[in-house]
Amino acid sequence: MSNNTENQFDNKNKAWSARFSEPMSELVKRYTASVFFEQRLAPFDIEGSLAHAEMLSNVGVISEEDFINIQKGLNQILEEIREGKFTWSLDLEDVHLNIEKRLVDLIGDAGKRLHTGRSRNDQVATDIRLWLRCEIDTDIDLLKNLRIVLAQLAIKYHDIVMPGFTHLQVAQPVSFGHHMLAYAEMFGRDLERLRDCRKRANILPLGAAALAGTSYPLDREKVAEILNFDSITTNSLDSVSDRDFAIEFCSVASIAMMHISRLSEELVLWMSQQFSFIKLPDRFCTGSSIMPQKKNPDVPELARGKTGRVYGDLMSMLVLMKSQPLAYNKDNQEDKEALFDAADTLRDTLTIFIEMISGLEVNALNMSNAAKKGFSTATDLADYLVKKGLPFRDAHEVVAKAVKECEAQSKDLSDLSLEEFKKMNTMIDSDIYDFLTLEGSVNSRKTIGGTSFENVLAQANAILSGER
Amino acid sequence: MSNNTENQFDNKNKAWSARFSEPMSELVKRYTASVFFEQRLAPFDIEGSLAHAEMLSNVGVISEEDFINIQKGLNQILEEIREGKFTWSLDLEDVHLNIEKRLVDLIGDAGKRLHTGRSRNDQVATDIRLWLRCEIDTDIDLLKNLRIVLAQLAIKYHDIVMPGFTHLQVAQPVSFGHHMLAYAEMFGRDLERLRDCRKRANILPLGAAALAGTSYPLDREKVAEILNFDSITTNSLDSVSDRDFAIEFCSVASIAMMHISRLSEELVLWMSQQFSFIKLPDRFCTGSSIMPQKKNPDVPELARGKTGRVYGDLMSMLVLMKSQPLAYNKDNQEDKEALFDAADTLRDTLTIFIEMISGLEVNALNMSNAAKKGFSTATDLADYLVKKGLPFRDAHEVVAKAVKECEAQSKDLSDLSLEEFKKMNTMIDSDIYDFLTLEGSVNSRKTIGGTSFENVLAQANAILSGER
Amino acid sequence: MSNNTENQFDNKNKAWSARFSEPMSELVKRYTASVFFEQRLAPFDIEGSLAHAEMLSNVGVISEEDFINIQKGLNQILEEIREGKFTWSLDLEDVHLNIEKRLVDLIGDAGKRLHTGRSRNDQVATDIRLWLRCEIDTDIDLLKNLRIVLAQLAIKYHDIVMPGFTHLQVAQPVSFGHHMLAYAEMFGRDLERLRDCRKRANILPLGAAALAGTSYPLDREKVAEILNFDSITTNSLDSVSDRDFAIEFCSVASIAMMHISRLSEELVLWMSQQFSFIKLPDRFCTGSSIMPQKKNPDVPELARGKTGRVYGDLMSMLVLMKSQPLAYNKDNQEDKEALFDAADTLRDTLTIFIEMISGLEVNALNMSNAAKKGFSTATDLADYLVKKGLPFRDAHEVVAKAVKECEAQSKDLSDLSLEEFKKMNTMIDSDIYDFLTLEGSVNSRKTIGGTSFENVLAQANAILSGER
Amino acid sequence: MSNNTENQFDNKNKAWSARFSEPMSELVKRYTASVFFEQRLAPFDIEGSLAHAEMLSNVGVISEEDFINIQKGLNQILEEIREGKFTWSLDLEDVHLNIEKRLVDLIGDAGKRLHTGRSRNDQVATDIRLWLRCEIDTDIDLLKNLRIVLAQLAIKYHDIVMPGFTHLQVAQPVSFGHHMLAYAEMFGRDLERLRDCRKRANILPLGAAALAGTSYPLDREKVAEILNFDSITTNSLDSVSDRDFAIEFCSVASIAMMHISRLSEELVLWMSQQFSFIKLPDRFCTGSSIMPQKKNPDVPELARGKTGRVYGDLMSMLVLMKSQPLAYNKDNQEDKEALFDAADTLRDTLTIFIEMISGLEVNALNMSNAAKKGFSTATDLADYLVKKGLPFRDAHEVVAKAVKECEAQSKDLSDLSLEEFKKMNTMIDSDIYDFLTLEGSVNSRKTIGGTSFENVLAQANAILSGER
Repeated sequence: MSNNTENQFDNKNKAWSARFSEPMSELVKRYTASVFFEQRLAPFDIEGSLAHAEMLSNVGVISEEDFINIQKGLNQILEEIREGKFTWSLDLEDVHLNIEKRLVDLIGDAGKRLHTGRSRNDQVATDIRLWLRCEIDTDIDLLKNLRIVLAQLAIKYHDIVMPGFTHLQVAQPVSFGHHMLAYAEMFGRDLERLRDCRKRANILPLGAAALAGTSYPLDREKVAEILNFDSITTNSLDSVSDRDFAIEFCSVASIAMMHISRLSEELVLWMSQQFSFIKLPDRFCTGSSIMPQKKNPDVPELARGKTGRVYGDLMSMLVLMKSQPLAYNKDNQEDKEALFDAADTLRDTLTIFIEMISGLEVNALNMSNAAKKGFSTATDLADYLVKKGLPFRDAHEVVAKAVKECEAQSKDLSDLSLEEFKKMNTMIDSDIYDFLTLEGSVNSRKTIGGTSFENVLAQANAILSGER
Repeated sequence: MSNNTENQFDNKNKAWSARFSEPMSELVKRYTASVFFEQRLAPFDIEGSLAHAEMLSNVGVISEEDFINIQKGLNQILEEIREGKFTWSLDLEDVHLNIEKRLVDLIGDAGKRLHTGRSRNDQVATDIRLWLRCEIDTDIDLLKNLRIVLAQLAIKYHDIVMPGFTHLQVAQPVSFGHHMLAYAEMFGRDLERLRDCRKRANILPLGAAALAGTSYPLDREKVAEILNFDSITTNSLDSVSDRDFAIEFCSVASIAMMHISRLSEELVLWMSQQFSFIKLPDRFCTGSSIMPQKKNPDVPELARGKTGRVYGDLMSMLVLMKSQPLAYNKDNQEDKEALFDAADTLRDTLTIFIEMISGLEVNALNMSNAAKKGFSTATDLADYLVKKGLPFRDAHEVVAKAVKECEAQSKDLSDLSLEEFKKMNTMIDSDIYDFLTLEGSVNSRKTIGGTSFENVLAQANAILSGER
Repeated sequence: MSNNTENQFDNKNKAWSARFSEPMSELVKRYTASVFFEQRLAPFDIEGSLAHAEMLSNVGVISEEDFINIQKGLNQILEEIREGKFTWSLDLEDVHLNIEKRLVDLIGDAGKRLHTGRSRNDQVATDIRLWLRCEIDTDIDLLKNLRIVLAQLAIKYHDIVMPGFTHLQVAQPVSFGHHMLAYAEMFGRDLERLRDCRKRANILPLGAAALAGTSYPLDREKVAEILNFDSITTNSLDSVSDRDFAIEFCSVASIAMMHISRLSEELVLWMSQQFSFIKLPDRFCTGSSIMPQKKNPDVPELARGKTGRVYGDLMSMLVLMKSQPLAYNKDNQEDKEALFDAADTLRDTLTIFIEMISGLEVNALNMSNAAKKGFSTATDLADYLVKKGLPFRDAHEVVAKAVKECEAQSKDLSDLSLEEFKKMNTMIDSDIYDFLTLEGSVNSRKTIGGTSFENVLAQANAILSGER
Repeated sequence: MSNNTENQFDNKNKAWSARFSEPMSELVKRYTASVFFEQRLAPFDIEGSLAHAEMLSNVGVISEEDFINIQKGLNQILEEIREGKFTWSLDLEDVHLNIEKRLVDLIGDAGKRLHTGRSRNDQVATDIRLWLRCEIDTDIDLLKNLRIVLAQLAIKYHDIVMPGFTHLQVAQPVSFGHHMLAYAEMFGRDLERLRDCRKRANILPLGAAALAGTSYPLDREKVAEILNFDSITTNSLDSVSDRDFAIEFCSVASIAMMHISRLSEELVLWMSQQFSFIKLPDRFCTGSSIMPQKKNPDVPELARGKTGRVYGDLMSMLVLMKSQPLAYNKDNQEDKEALFDAADTLRDTLTIFIEMISGLEVNALNMSNAAKKGFSTATDLADYLVKKGLPFRDAHEVVAKAVKECEAQSKDLSDLSLEEFKKMNTMIDSDIYDFLTLEGSVNSRKTIGGTSFENVLAQANAILSGER
């Protein structure tokens, strides 16, 4: 029996604890509280508490009866939260104290024993890791689906030729499918990075307590097993201070959004009247309040803009962790909103891109017309000369001259007569015209990674089969 | 009489306008809508619309009756919003369309005439400028008050001596008041920067319409006058594309938060058991869930962490505007949340710092004890030698040796006997001891900006009188 | 006569000063030295030292003879530096000590007296401000010139019509000159921001000494007068800690580079075969090592890329100043390279843009053809209906339908017969065709800031005359 | 025999190639050239060219004789570069063209054949990957050594007790060795991240040519084998556009520098007169130009400042890649300086920290005195009560009251008499005093990751043995 009937929650609105002589200022409460933005952690907080309680009962720190009561209480609280019936209190600062206070209300002394051998420092680190692991798994699935959609598009349009650009100047003809698969590669690397990040996120910090570990005989490996963590952390100071996994996630998200921004830029370009390479379904566009003719590619534009947002989140996290002495400091509370924002933005953007990309329609004629501009097969002419024996650097110069002349005459290379070609270089024969067609050019590039139609099909199928 | 009874809002949930053949995807609606985060713009949107309507009626584009109806309608809507009775609809995308639709419902055709000669592009630019101007004015007042609180503290503690640090090593004794006034200087510059930023924010873009101006005979100067803008923009493409004022505000806020982070770092240091220079009132501190003895300086820690947040907002804005072709692109919608977040963070932080700084208590004894450590008057000894005729660089070397010897003997400079001093340099006399006291050192620094008590009082009074 | 013949520089390679018992590690010397990257400060360091010495002599802290010797010595050093004959030593860490040591070598004891009443902390702060002021003045001139070049282009091409874009979709026709003047507005604001930044940079910190001020009777206002500073700082701790002016410059440079990135993006777009709106002179382009036909707009692309560089510099500065306790910390040394890099990038970019923009050639035909696409005069049709009495929102809907129908029939609005128009709305008359031409549309937008040719000429002339 | 004697290099100073009609502007040359900052790539460029030539000869695209000549030429060039005899020319823009031009000068036509089947786009991507792989390997070794030094320190000082801090308030006593090992954990994660980054960097892009692949029958796998790449890229557009590996490296470097900044912050704190926990060897410190007594921890301060620099580099890279359409754009050239700067900063900082940390000396007495302040064993008292049967939340409250009372009486918890303890709670017995000692507290925390001396030794030994 306890000979003390007061506990820490009783007077939370009067003073932080018995150690404090005045209540927290209302302004301070609002400024420092996290309860309103971190409610998404609640199910994970309960999951972690259930595992902690089970272990405490296993090792005999609390009784089995206490554990059963805690279980009942926490499950009821989870239910209340899911049904929107839970009352969150600003006075109780955060999700952890809100839940624990409610638990004490529901089940009494057993509830007060739940926090034995742990601290909010290791508790919140556990919650975030559980939440982030779940988020990463969702993103991995989304990236897989986005790659599938891109591969399907690549197969559908493997034989549509468009201009490949460098410096936004027409460079060489490529397959539209090949272009789509370039993005599949990028998102493939993002996926790998997420998997690597998951390895470092999926480690249990619980048991570090405030910063020094605890004197209770906790079985940390048991908790890790219950919660499906790969392993447990090995230094308590580090366990409560480490936010690497969160920063790493933001940096992976930033790189993924950078890829999204590149694809978005291209979609916006291709939707312009000047390119007219593609159409996006109406449901991904909006109009103008003043110009009745407008159909704007809002989704890719907004996604492009949101890239800055995720970069900003990454920067916030890096800045807030800079120069912090060990171990936990209140600065760390600021990690959550940035992390949540980066995760939400990535998830929503990937979700919408899967739907949008699968609805993309191609204007094959405009693409191939564009590919014919800009002397896109000039390299093929140079390569032709090399194969006839001219050193590459000399061949480059011959073709540069030919292009300059064609431009002066407003002609394409394929418009030149054999005679004109021969004047440039006597080694040129009538077979040259085969090399100057778009399809001839594209399909000559058969080395691995090249843009030939068969390569495109092979790479796309490797993605669909899960090989890559 | 209109021979067309349909208007743009009637079927918004079916298709964006008559130009579109399918409704916007639900996912896209949520992804692209701004209505939920920009409701704070509503009063400014209405203020802008009222001015626009008044001018339209003045120049005869709409009738006076229409204007009166619009006025009634908009005032009712403002009332509905204030009372929380307004129903915001996701289908109507943003604050502007929500309000306009409601206006048409309330007053019919007159409501449909409000948007004459303007576009959402210039409308939203106007709204943000109106809102930001109001925010800047609040921040200017807060900075003024923070400077006053710092000046009051400086007067109260002008004669308390603490160690001045460089490299966090004790350097020279300074007045605590002088230290506080260093921050008053910083916040003074922040205030100036806000004023400069306000000049560029307070210019009316309305009248640029979508991007090219308008063919209606608008009186833009009249609108500027009604809305208290200093002037009007002079290029319509720029008017709808420009977000400089928002980025500039974020950069000013970042610098101000950087100052806050420095002050916070010092408050946290000074609250530590190692320094024990100050106490913060209990209402600005929290305890620990596990360690019953803790009293943590949460507010300055959190403020320090929030610095990263505002830096992140600035970065988001700079990134999203990078490489955008003219004129308005949907990317720009992303400016709002970052801007709002930076503004909220700055405002809340300044508000709480005014209250917290005014409650700060000083432990004078600990400060002066600390100032006595670390040979803080060594420079005074060197200056003494210089005044006796030794070149500064030689004097520096004499004192460096003296310090090394004192350190070996665990002595302070003032513990040396005159004989010992004479061994170092024969020019030293018994008056040396006056120069080695803390107060002697502090009060010798009388040039403008120096730390002498009288300087501190003068600088603080200049702030309180509004001179600086 | 000095009875001490050693001074601080004598054994710098053996130990930092008499206080130290081992030499600095070679690795540490390289890691901490700034002498190699800050040599550009040398002329400003000498300028500052000359003013300091003159004042010291004025107030009698040093003799006039000493001052004359210091003057001679420093002028000789300046000469040596200009001629590349000065030997910079890593052992002497920084520009200040290198110069001072050389001065002592040249003129003996008088040289050792130069550092009286100052510290490297206030000295370096003075040097950077002198250097930055000079840099700002250069940038202001460059921005003025860039605006002039843009205004000249605007006049030359005031009557060339191009499509104005929103969302990169054709929106409404605008004058190419109007488009150029949008950038003149942006660079005009950058110029204003530089002027505001200059106000805060042009304040003298010298006299703050290490951090507390000094006991020598310095005449700080005299030094400010000699060096053309507007005023002097008023708090010594702040004087040596403040890097606001440097951060503010980087933020102004970031915004200016953001504008450059937008212009660059458009130049790259307009150079593409799809747009073909402009040509850049060959001297601003490069070719490809493999594709002989390529002519790439390297300069705008690189400028666009360099935007990231300046953003990075800004971020570095903000991060390094975050959470620094007062007063000077070694972290601050890191401000220089970022600041120099931002300044160099801005200056070089502005210089090259002035030259490049003035060589820009326009393809008027391609521009007007593009403007005819995309129903760019649809708003004009809507406005026509409004002027006939239809409420704007209804007019918008009528035109949206018309566009949809035209699109289905691959027609432009101006291809519709009067009969077809009348079917849409009976108020339409034969005068409608005047409103649907590009020139008609552009020149109808006569309100201030609108794109009419006369507005463009007026705005450009205002810039050329220096009015704006 | 070639019937064309001109090649691309002949007139590089007159025009970019035969396609161009005027030479590049001098200003543009300097603005766009990379030759001066990328010379460090030269050995890797040659390594890559040698492998390319070997393969070209293997598959019969060039003759074996050509390959032998190329080998000889390139080896001579490598020698010239190493000996500083190579003349770099601005006219030749970059490292690649400089080397190739010299090769043609040395060996004639064979040199002109080297560039067959490749482009500078895939060539530079290969060079950077080769260089970065080498840099990553160096950093991995440095991180290993830094962890060893930390582990050795941890063993040496495993039984030194210091205060563990949260919120910079004394929290609970911990072993100094434990604190050092927290950093070993952080650097261990950095090492893992570098290994993951290396996987994605170590893939061969050569063979992608300009962007579309090539029509020559290249054996890309052979080249990968010669150059020790793990695999080859599979999409040519992606191969020349991808800078993920560089951004990922910068983000890993940023996180590592963040860890360095935290350690630096602590070193600076611990060196202050207020803490006096440690000494750094004189060779890592500098003095003051004015204050003769100063010994400043320059290295950790500067390292802390350099954190901002690496964050800035990361931001630059992310910004420059944002919104770039495929494939290569000139913006990408800007990746190098940021990447080099991040790599140099990380490498230099790790190198200096290994040396500095191994020279760190501890003041055990000051540490344990500090640990006795701040009621650091209050949690132990609470845990004692819990083990006696009090629910944790009630125990927390009992102790909070005790602390408040002790504070009022300026007492420590261990100063309370048993009677006083009994008044608080009757369950307290005389064994309580064992729990309130520093060593008792530290050694009670024996769960994995806890701070007990035996745990510290075990964790340190695991690092030294390479287990962790």
